[in-house]
Amino acid sequence: MNYRVDLNSDLGESFGAWKMGRDGDVLTFVSSANVACGFHAGDACVMRATVTAAKAAGVAVGAHPAYPDLVGFGRRNMACTPDELYAYTLYQIGALRAFCEAAGTKLQHVKPHGAMYNSAAKKIEEAEALAQAVKDAGGLILMGLAGSKFDEAAAKIGLPYAAEAFADRGYMPDGTLVPRSKEGAFVRDTEVAAARVIRMVKEGVVEAIDGTIVKLRPHSICLHGDSPTAVQMAQTLRARLVEAGIEIAPLAQIV
Amino acid sequence: MNYRVDLNSDLGESFGAWKMGRDGDVLTFVSSANVACGFHAGDACVMRATVTAAKAAGVAVGAHPAYPDLVGFGRRNMACTPDELYAYTLYQIGALRAFCEAAGTKLQHVKPHGAMYNSAAKKIEEAEALAQAVKDAGGLILMGLAGSKFDEAAAKIGLPYAAEAFADRGYMPDGTLVPRSKEGAFVRDTEVAAARVIRMVKEGVVEAIDGTIVKLRPHSICLHGDSPTAVQMAQTLRARLVEAGIEIAPLAQIV
Amino acid sequence: MNYRVDLNSDLGESFGAWKMGRDGDVLTFVSSANVACGFHAGDACVMRATVTAAKAAGVAVGAHPAYPDLVGFGRRNMACTPDELYAYTLYQIGALRAFCEAAGTKLQHVKPHGAMYNSAAKKIEEAEALAQAVKDAGGLILMGLAGSKFDEAAAKIGLPYAAEAFADRGYMPDGTLVPRSKEGAFVRDTEVAAARVIRMVKEGVVEAIDGTIVKLRPHSICLHGDSPTAVQMAQTLRARLVEAGIEIAPLAQIV
Amino acid sequence: MNYRVDLNSDLGESFGAWKMGRDGDVLTFVSSANVACGFHAGDACVMRATVTAAKAAGVAVGAHPAYPDLVGFGRRNMACTPDELYAYTLYQIGALRAFCEAAGTKLQHVKPHGAMYNSAAKKIEEAEALAQAVKDAGGLILMGLAGSKFDEAAAKIGLPYAAEAFADRGYMPDGTLVPRSKEGAFVRDTEVAAARVIRMVKEGVVEAIDGTIVKLRPHSICLHGDSPTAVQMAQTLRARLVEAGIEIAPLAQIV
Repeated sequence: MNYRVDLNSDLGESFGAWKMGRDGDVLTFVSSANVACGFHAGDACVMRATVTAAKAAGVAVGAHPAYPDLVGFGRRNMACTPDELYAYTLYQIGALRAFCEAAGTKLQHVKPHGAMYNSAAKKIEEAEALAQAVKDAGGLILMGLAGSKFDEAAAKIGLPYAAEAFADRGYMPDGTLVPRSKEGAFVRDTEVAAARVIRMVKEGVVEAIDGTIVKLRPHSICLHGDSPTAVQMAQTLRARLVEAGIEIAPLAQIV
Repeated sequence: MNYRVDLNSDLGESFGAWKMGRDGDVLTFVSSANVACGFHAGDACVMRATVTAAKAAGVAVGAHPAYPDLVGFGRRNMACTPDELYAYTLYQIGALRAFCEAAGTKLQHVKPHGAMYNSAAKKIEEAEALAQAVKDAGGLILMGLAGSKFDEAAAKIGLPYAAEAFADRGYMPDGTLVPRSKEGAFVRDTEVAAARVIRMVKEGVVEAIDGTIVKLRPHSICLHGDSPTAVQMAQTLRARLVEAGIEIAPLAQIV
Repeated sequence: MNYRVDLNSDLGESFGAWKMGRDGDVLTFVSSANVACGFHAGDACVMRATVTAAKAAGVAVGAHPAYPDLVGFGRRNMACTPDELYAYTLYQIGALRAFCEAAGTKLQHVKPHGAMYNSAAKKIEEAEALAQAVKDAGGLILMGLAGSKFDEAAAKIGLPYAAEAFADRGYMPDGTLVPRSKEGAFVRDTEVAAARVIRMVKEGVVEAIDGTIVKLRPHSICLHGDSPTAVQMAQTLRARLVEAGIEIAPLAQIV
Repeated sequence: MNYRVDLNSDLGESFGAWKMGRDGDVLTFVSSANVACGFHAGDACVMRATVTAAKAAGVAVGAHPAYPDLVGFGRRNMACTPDELYAYTLYQIGALRAFCEAAGTKLQHVKPHGAMYNSAAKKIEEAEALAQAVKDAGGLILMGLAGSKFDEAAAKIGLPYAAEAFADRGYMPDGTLVPRSKEGAFVRDTEVAAARVIRMVKEGVVEAIDGTIVKLRPHSICLHGDSPTAVQMAQTLRARLVEAGIEIAPLAQIV
């Protein structure tokens, strides 16, 4: 049997004179990149450069739309209506897609960012607004938290969907993430993290913090590239996956 | 012989809680609308509603990209580099196009707004940056000031191009507009304005303020809809054009 | 016995090319104006003009700080931390105060706007952050919803405080406003509204929707000036208060 | 005879999640800091933290107002009217002053940033608008390029004024800076730079690139702190000034 998984990370989070992230490093270990679209990070010039770099590295490009909150980096809850969420998402998808098309590459997916992602993962009317925007944009895959309202919203309208899981996070018995403030929130040992991901991909399960075996079969694993340690963890994980016979491939080849 | 001309006006210039313009009226007399894309006016929700209204009225939609200057309404010169102009334009085109595609309509053209338009009309490197963005977006017509650097930039890269002229403005012997501060800048008599436009379309000329006959064959006539008087002028002009046997048609049927 | 009350309204909510409100009318019937400070409305030029107009009309000026949400007009909840609320409030107070001082007038009070106001009225840690910013700015009165966490936060740090009530809104037995979606939310009859305000000022009570008599002694009554009807209601209310022997005076003469 | 000079540098240029500059280092070698005020950099939280850090280090605080161009970092010319410049400047001064007063320190000066500085240095109507805003704010020193329109504008209205010069830049025979694109634009040898500054302070002259001796007696020397090299240059310069018997003191003790 063939096993495949996508590795994704956030990219293009610089803005104007401010630099952020290790985009060059990240492009060496992901198969799909979530590119900021100007609302929380990533101005038009950064978007153009990021799409060009991703194409050169053979990495698939996704839109990473967010709340209109630049100073808050899209990390604060904002009480947007479903209509606002729909319009904000479609706007950002379109903007990034223009850079993809101009660069001769294809926009592959959409992964909402930060607080927009976390809020919609729990609220079906928000997840539905985002899913509808992705569907109306056409030809795209929605990426969301495995086991969340995103799954439900995408299924309801027949939208191609990629569930993502986290290599470095603990899981609750109900399949949600252990809150960052609780013990067991993080898996800091790279080898343990790699073994967990391999089990998710091959067996479709993960062990929760209380030992419960939870069903979870992700299409994509979210990685971070914001520190030398994160980059090293990502590289090791990638190596272990390949050793385990798991092919790393962009979402479009998996969903 | 068949004569055709497009009538265009700016649309969708509301923002958030602020309303601007008489979009309902404007949609009754134009064949093409230039829709604000969020940089100088027109947030994502306004853009969505504007595209929907234009489609319902059978009016073709164009993007109206601007400098990133909301508080200045895109009317102030900003010293942007050609790379910035390219990226800002492509971003805004993409954002608006997503709403068009979601609404099942086509984005027809791009007309830069305000200071971005005026500056590029005179500077070839700016006109070229804008033209390249329109070309790279694909399938679009660039609209610019007749006889300006826009003509030159579009011709150079084989980009479909629409020259626009003004019904209510006086012309200099060299084909440029009489500056707003000078006598003769405005043609306030609607019948005179209509006669001038009819001559532009049928004979390809306009009489300058000094009596010189200047060559000018516009594809589109720019109208304003920001006051009851402007709306009335637009309606009269439209009636006179039809009486003179000139068909009013969107750009895509002319260029 | 002498009775006094302040009448307040929001002012200076235009932004750039967009006009909003009937500031000229409002200045004829209020004693204190809450001036937008650039985060939800009111750019620097509008602020300058508004302060000048208020001074000329003899109306006291207050700051009307908001969440950084221009497109949402500060009406959407944003999950800001107390530190962010403190800094946003102090920033906006300072900006407006500079215009007051340059115009030779005094900044009198601070009334948070929209969602920032509503959220802090219920959450003590938010009310405390806002109150601390007002105290640290120095020499100012905080205006908040009567009977809310604002009262508590101001009392705790000894900050001069003005409770406000609404002429045109119904009250619940616990002193909170009847939600806008419920029956009894609005008092639309001007004479009824006037009688209720007179009772609040003279007797310190208001009749709730179920007939309960609720204690409520406001220092200021909030009025709206966003429509011809609203303006007329405000003018009638003002006349009835004067007939009832209630002096209308700015906050600084009451608190 | 006693010699004194101020050393100034830009500070507080982070924004939201983005970090910029080596503020900790800079505070060890300057006597005055120019703090970004939110228009080109420096959100309200950053401003608060920067003022606190400057006070703790015994460094005087100045406002560093800019054009409203966050994505362009205030480095691009914008055709603002004198009224806009006045209002933008007063707004930013007020915002920063509120943080100073809350921290128990005094706002000392105002130095316009980037393109706003460069443009006003050459255009008297812009320099006058900025100077008037500083005067109307009250109790402040304007800092501008030595020998520019700033000198003239400040003198005209009797505004306390500090002329600044550059340790690491070459000068033209007319006292202007050698353009960055020309040979001789930069003085890269720290010892040479130090000797030039010592001569400016003691003799009131600088040698231009053609050998001409130009009059120039600065109150403040502008330093950069954006790289390890810049920090080292600043530290050496400071040491040489002290060895030469020149006291380093904040502007308020010099002007």
